[in-house]
Amino acid sequence: MLLDNLNWRYATKKYDATKKVAEEDVKKIVEAARMAPTSSGLQQFRVIVITDQALKEKIVPVAMGQDIVAECSHLLVFAAWDKYTEERIDNAYNFITDERDLPRGRFSSYTDRLKAMYLQQSAEENFVHTARQAYIGFGLAIAQAAELKVDSTPMEGFVPAELDELLGLRQMGLRSVTILPLGYRAEEGDWLADMKKVRIPEDEFVIRM
Amino acid sequence: MLLDNLNWRYATKKYDATKKVAEEDVKKIVEAARMAPTSSGLQQFRVIVITDQALKEKIVPVAMGQDIVAECSHLLVFAAWDKYTEERIDNAYNFITDERDLPRGRFSSYTDRLKAMYLQQSAEENFVHTARQAYIGFGLAIAQAAELKVDSTPMEGFVPAELDELLGLRQMGLRSVTILPLGYRAEEGDWLADMKKVRIPEDEFVIRM
Repeated sequence: MLLDNLNWRYATKKYDATKKVAEEDVKKIVEAARMAPTSSGLQQFRVIVITDQALKEKIVPVAMGQDIVAECSHLLVFAAWDKYTEERIDNAYNFITDERDLPRGRFSSYTDRLKAMYLQQSAEENFVHTARQAYIGFGLAIAQAAELKVDSTPMEGFVPAELDELLGLRQMGLRSVTILPLGYRAEEGDWLADMKKVRIPEDEFVIRM
Repeated sequence: MLLDNLNWRYATKKYDATKKVAEEDVKKIVEAARMAPTSSGLQQFRVIVITDQALKEKIVPVAMGQDIVAECSHLLVFAAWDKYTEERIDNAYNFITDERDLPRGRFSSYTDRLKAMYLQQSAEENFVHTARQAYIGFGLAIAQAAELKVDSTPMEGFVPAELDELLGLRQMGLRSVTILPLGYRAEEGDWLADMKKVRIPEDEFVIRM
């Protein structure tokens, strides 16, 4: 059950660098992000799976010196479209119509509205929107990891522009949004592991109307 | 399994207005959002659960005339903090330390860094960040609904400022981000119900390094 898995998980602070997550599990975690609903179905983000140890180590200084990005088994980077373009919107909808055996252009009045809305915005305004979509996939990947009893650490503590540079993301039309180390918690050295999970009470979180 | 549930769900386009979601299920859906991880554990968003039929009908014109916000059983509104304040950060961490039987101020060097970062930003910059967190909870609520075989429709198609006004959200220090009708699909009239779910291929979605 999802709620049990969400209760089980916590933001792991120390990984056992000797334990690797099975590729089959990583595949499912990324798959949950791929299945995420996104605005207009455009899937405005991608997931970068980093296993190269030297590269992981280069990310430590970009991530405020946090060693977990090197000690983890796999490092996921969630990166969103740097902007909307006519081509990206058309490609997405051509793929959708092809997959559904519908004529291309079937949704053209809809995609025209999307273009009218997004293409007059700045790239930065576009990115505010595309980055939000990445968080849906980010949350679902965290939930999928927990279902598999894989530990993870949702992280925003890194310098996106530096990570983009290091990974060459801008050349792919992407900008990093969040990162997610995956692995197995170390037996010792994780100050958060035994702490009570705290959430504000339901009657404060929920407003009924 | 999460992946099965994500495959089962789709953005429902027509609800059976006579079918209501059990309160017990709504509670679990909101609970998944409450358990969502958030940046620094601040839980920068809230969920508004709307059942009042007259209010749901008033939201139709704010939501591009989309009737599903009135026809659905429950309408959830995800709303994020309009800005960071010293008080909000302190309240969150006082609650965390109290719940963990730690002395208040135990995380003061950390919260000082958060304040130094967020309080020098504009409210709009703050909201870019708080709104992102709401999307994590949004995704998990969608997944929890699917686990319970409750239909839902992730929606950004509404005018946030108008919805904020209608619900009085700004007085609560909140701004609407997304909405999520919950209910059960109508037998007829949903053009999307029988369409193939389309996602870009895994080898396009995932970048390996």
